[in-house]
Amino acid sequence: MEKVNPKTLSGFMELLPEEQILFNKLKDIIRDTYEKYGFLPLDTPVIEYSNVLLAKAGGETEKQIYRFNKGDNDLSLRFDLTVPLAKYVAKNYNDLIFPFKRYQIGKVFRGERSQKGRFREFYQCDIDIIGDEKLDLFNDAIVPAAINEVFTKMNIGKFTIRINNRKILNGFFESLGLLDNASDILRDIDKIDKIGVSSLKEILLDKISEDKVNQILDFISIKGNNDEVIKSLRNLNINNEVFIEGVNELEIVVKYMSMLEVPKDNYMIDLTIARGLDYYTGTVYETILDDYKSIGSISSGGRYDSLAEYYTDKKLPGVGMSIGLTRLFDQLLDANIIKVEQKTDLDVLILPMSDNIEYILNTMKKLRNDNIKVDVCDLSKNTKQKFKYANRINVKYVVIIGDDEIKTNTITLKNMETGEQKNISVAEVKKSLI
Amino acid sequence: MEKVNPKTLSGFMELLPEEQILFNKLKDIIRDTYEKYGFLPLDTPVIEYSNVLLAKAGGETEKQIYRFNKGDNDLSLRFDLTVPLAKYVAKNYNDLIFPFKRYQIGKVFRGERSQKGRFREFYQCDIDIIGDEKLDLFNDAIVPAAINEVFTKMNIGKFTIRINNRKILNGFFESLGLLDNASDILRDIDKIDKIGVSSLKEILLDKISEDKVNQILDFISIKGNNDEVIKSLRNLNINNEVFIEGVNELEIVVKYMSMLEVPKDNYMIDLTIARGLDYYTGTVYETILDDYKSIGSISSGGRYDSLAEYYTDKKLPGVGMSIGLTRLFDQLLDANIIKVEQKTDLDVLILPMSDNIEYILNTMKKLRNDNIKVDVCDLSKNTKQKFKYANRINVKYVVIIGDDEIKTNTITLKNMETGEQKNISVAEVKKSLI
Repeated sequence: MEKVNPKTLSGFMELLPEEQILFNKLKDIIRDTYEKYGFLPLDTPVIEYSNVLLAKAGGETEKQIYRFNKGDNDLSLRFDLTVPLAKYVAKNYNDLIFPFKRYQIGKVFRGERSQKGRFREFYQCDIDIIGDEKLDLFNDAIVPAAINEVFTKMNIGKFTIRINNRKILNGFFESLGLLDNASDILRDIDKIDKIGVSSLKEILLDKISEDKVNQILDFISIKGNNDEVIKSLRNLNINNEVFIEGVNELEIVVKYMSMLEVPKDNYMIDLTIARGLDYYTGTVYETILDDYKSIGSISSGGRYDSLAEYYTDKKLPGVGMSIGLTRLFDQLLDANIIKVEQKTDLDVLILPMSDNIEYILNTMKKLRNDNIKVDVCDLSKNTKQKFKYANRINVKYVVIIGDDEIKTNTITLKNMETGEQKNISVAEVKKSLI
Repeated sequence: MEKVNPKTLSGFMELLPEEQILFNKLKDIIRDTYEKYGFLPLDTPVIEYSNVLLAKAGGETEKQIYRFNKGDNDLSLRFDLTVPLAKYVAKNYNDLIFPFKRYQIGKVFRGERSQKGRFREFYQCDIDIIGDEKLDLFNDAIVPAAINEVFTKMNIGKFTIRINNRKILNGFFESLGLLDNASDILRDIDKIDKIGVSSLKEILLDKISEDKVNQILDFISIKGNNDEVIKSLRNLNINNEVFIEGVNELEIVVKYMSMLEVPKDNYMIDLTIARGLDYYTGTVYETILDDYKSIGSISSGGRYDSLAEYYTDKKLPGVGMSIGLTRLFDQLLDANIIKVEQKTDLDVLILPMSDNIEYILNTMKKLRNDNIKVDVCDLSKNTKQKFKYANRINVKYVVIIGDDEIKTNTITLKNMETGEQKNISVAEVKKSLI
């Protein structure tokens, strides 16, 4: 028979078991933390009507979408979890209790040009809090507090959640008479980490007067701890309502984060953070790994005034953040920040050295009853092969069962790391595992 | 702005949060049990090359597939988790350790005609054990033992895993000189629960002689406990190698299941079980809910000689079972076997009756540090609205924080079911939750 080449599409992550174990650990940390913070689970379809999914989209996003017909239906694969959330909230408005806090962890699809670190299928892990008509500002602190706990538990090194408020930016540019150019200028400012201040200045001078360029550079160079930045912003004496509202909101959000005991080192105001301009309307977040800034933001988000305006007249303000886990995992592995160690999830592997299958299977059953993750090595292997197998899967403990053990109704527990072994009853195994 | 109707495709399950909590509980039971039995996690792409996915498929399956082009690629959405497993094992053969035990829980897609209880997107929850060249028969007992533990933990009532062996069927039909008609006859036999013995007899008489029909009816009417059935099979004195091998295997598998302490009531030999004819080669399984037989099999599977023959010359025998969770969940809900009760996953909801946000957020942080799932009610609601909200989400405990509590550095914990409340320190909350 002619064989088909068993290949996987490029840009689609498919892991070996030992990598998948590690990936799932990170995914479980995210889920457990989101749930601990009171977010409810949501699971929406991978496929939606194209007109529902693309109600808002356009440009780049629309080109990347996986879109096709099935029967009479024009269908698309979801490209993020925010649009499905908007659809869901509009659709189920009467059945939901607001504020509606939901998390969703699922795959999304974007047919981008394939390149290192870019995935066409990837996990998004989102939290959002949606209000009905209004949403208290302390939610803007709850969301990054949850993200802070996720990354702390992941133990991936020092990180900083950078926070800004779009009203500050809008008000500032409005005060300069540059509101219409704001998105353009902010895109330039976004490059500052890459190109430096002097290049940025040159670019801006092509567009606006030197006086205003200097004011912009002064503004984005405001530094210091959060209290100092807020003070400097107030000292600018910008008499613009939106600006002042933004400064007030930002001050309150970082104060709430401090009350939530998010460590001072893990978040800071950064006036250069803007995020996609046509969406966010208040607080915005980006998160960077301090020692691996080149990775870019590992979790972003913000506050928006109107989640579902394409589907409903209801005003549904919200705030949320997202972790792109597939890309993050890939980059953490690449940078050696996380390492594949376990080849198995097992606590114990049974090595049968006897043909008494009943004793072997009974032992396995008893260990499982003690909630020990256990498996038995293939009976057909010889002794050497059995130990080789235990070494290959890198299991910490083996339970050896030979005729001697069966005669005395015991087992031999061996720690494969230390070589230490002892002859004990099955009931004693649980407390002997470290 | 004109609004887009926020509708979801029919045949695609999308649950309310309280239903999703229940769904996830079942999914977690499946995952936890599979892991406890030593199955490794696997996560393959939703999209594959069409020629890879359809290497084997044909007929009905191919018509149901979601297939489309993106750029130059002919792509399809996976329609089960077995074909991706075959691809994966063939592709990663050199990196895997055999026997390779994997579980996969993921969505699959079939564009079937939409009807009640049929889904176009649904979760499959699969376990398989793949051997290299050979695979010990005790794995045929491990797989249903894991499934038995899943359904026992789900607490969905009395169920029976029905077991047969395809070699018994093949050998029996061979001995009648009917091997070529076997698949046809077995399809007829599959209908016996619906049409009854006399109708079945009529159908068979159209095709084969009365003598043989009677032998077939005698064969499928063999009943009794597992020992009795094995004995009756041997008493048929059928001198066919394949038949005898099948009886031996079946006897050993049920013996191993007994050694694994699967309760006798939860499994039985059923000679009418055949499963898709061109795939399974040994043990086959179906699982029915005793009091809801009309639901059909809630978990099926079997032993196959060659997992990945379309991709590789390696002989990779395996055994596995699968749970179709989306359909099962839908039917369990419909039949009132499971019920939506919780509207929240929270252990505790804080009801703030003071403006001292610092004390409130600090309390929340301390409770979270004790791994309590906690959230705070919207500050803008009044007292009546706050209690109404707590009742709506159906949380068991609320923590009330007013000026009195703040003065004494305490909180008031109220059990919303009993109405009982007590004034305690934050540190005492954890041990006060039942």
